[in-house]
Amino acid sequence: MSEIVGKPVVEVCLTPALFHQYNTKDSIVVAIDILRATSSICVALQYGARSIVPVMTVEESFQFKEKGFLIGAERQGSMVEGFDLGNSPFSYMEDKIVGRDIALTTTNGTKAINIAKGSAGIVAGSFLNIDVLAAWLIQQNKNVLCLCAGWKNTFNLEDTLFAGALTQKLIPHFQLSEHRDSAIAAINLYNLAKHDMYDFLKDSSHRARLERLKIDEDVLYCLTPNQTLVVPVLKDGVLKKHSDW
Amino acid sequence: MSEIVGKPVVEVCLTPALFHQYNTKDSIVVAIDILRATSSICVALQYGARSIVPVMTVEESFQFKEKGFLIGAERQGSMVEGFDLGNSPFSYMEDKIVGRDIALTTTNGTKAINIAKGSAGIVAGSFLNIDVLAAWLIQQNKNVLCLCAGWKNTFNLEDTLFAGALTQKLIPHFQLSEHRDSAIAAINLYNLAKHDMYDFLKDSSHRARLERLKIDEDVLYCLTPNQTLVVPVLKDGVLKKHSDW
Repeated sequence: MSEIVGKPVVEVCLTPALFHQYNTKDSIVVAIDILRATSSICVALQYGARSIVPVMTVEESFQFKEKGFLIGAERQGSMVEGFDLGNSPFSYMEDKIVGRDIALTTTNGTKAINIAKGSAGIVAGSFLNIDVLAAWLIQQNKNVLCLCAGWKNTFNLEDTLFAGALTQKLIPHFQLSEHRDSAIAAINLYNLAKHDMYDFLKDSSHRARLERLKIDEDVLYCLTPNQTLVVPVLKDGVLKKHSDW
Repeated sequence: MSEIVGKPVVEVCLTPALFHQYNTKDSIVVAIDILRATSSICVALQYGARSIVPVMTVEESFQFKEKGFLIGAERQGSMVEGFDLGNSPFSYMEDKIVGRDIALTTTNGTKAINIAKGSAGIVAGSFLNIDVLAAWLIQQNKNVLCLCAGWKNTFNLEDTLFAGALTQKLIPHFQLSEHRDSAIAAINLYNLAKHDMYDFLKDSSHRARLERLKIDEDVLYCLTPNQTLVVPVLKDGVLKKHSDW
């Protein structure tokens, strides 16, 4: 939001409902949906998918299926009938995704990616690619906005923890803006949680939601740093590994 | 947001920009603008003001002046020309306010109070009245929404710390809703900060803003619990001590 003097700025947007408060024309937006869209996107590209198209609706997904795409979807935390893939990172480790293009729609993650169009760049962030992402962002030397996908436009904890973790890694090379309180909050929450994030999230709304779906293993995996070496970069509506562009 | 089963619900809204996500028809809204509107409101009623009318604009304030009100205002953290009072809690400890009606407009606080109209009740919260407010809220046995005024609709730290402190005091008698992550974040941030909130806020946007205005004493005072024994309750657009209604 403020002008750059020296280092680029890193900011944290706590939910897509607040995205309009940020000027991202010159910023790279890091879309964050830890449970589980941006985690699964990292896994898919790491395990050999050629590209991922974030789509907004189930209907649009079926149009991509007709074009030969695999289609993945999650609504209310569950897989959708007629789809090839759900939103579990493990389902994106299978051989059937190698070399394929995937159209993915999820409750929050793909929406966050789509509202960020118009910014200087969009990448997918998760604990699974945090170090390689931080290194890549430092290299770009541009302003960064961490955009927490949240849950239906509300604030959520796990995305905020990741925003804090990433911001902390960037800080030596970046500065906070005037509107810095969300970044300070996210960093503090991450440091409070980092020794056992799974436990820290035990009362959170999303873990409660996923526990009902019995996908605790997904949660544990999605909180594990550096399981992939990809930076998913969006161009022309398509996410590919940065090295594939 | 969820139905009450047993205990009433306590929720935390991190900025007025997210207020529409909450159904407050049956909730008491606690308006929170620690630096400094709701702190000064507590002080004014404690020190003898008869009532406070939160007004939205400077122009409206002057209409109240013609009716015999004292008028108080703050814009961008500073007092406004032609006004009797600023936004410092200390200016509301003076003899001239005793028995008087005050019209108050501030950048964020009065706006937060005004957007909450339509809820089951509106009260002003600050560290200065936290214990008496918590006791009063427990007595009402209704849902509570802590509404952080923030800064121009953005998230801020000091209001969030207070929301966490108050929520923690209410928890034994209340339950969290499905949308609980903001309450969990606020409680954790408060517990991290509580031993030295002034120091915790040293890098925050608002403290930086107020430091430029040289009102550090205001900040220290506004972070001190239980300096007043009033619960400012809004009815028909007017805030009075709960015992005066």
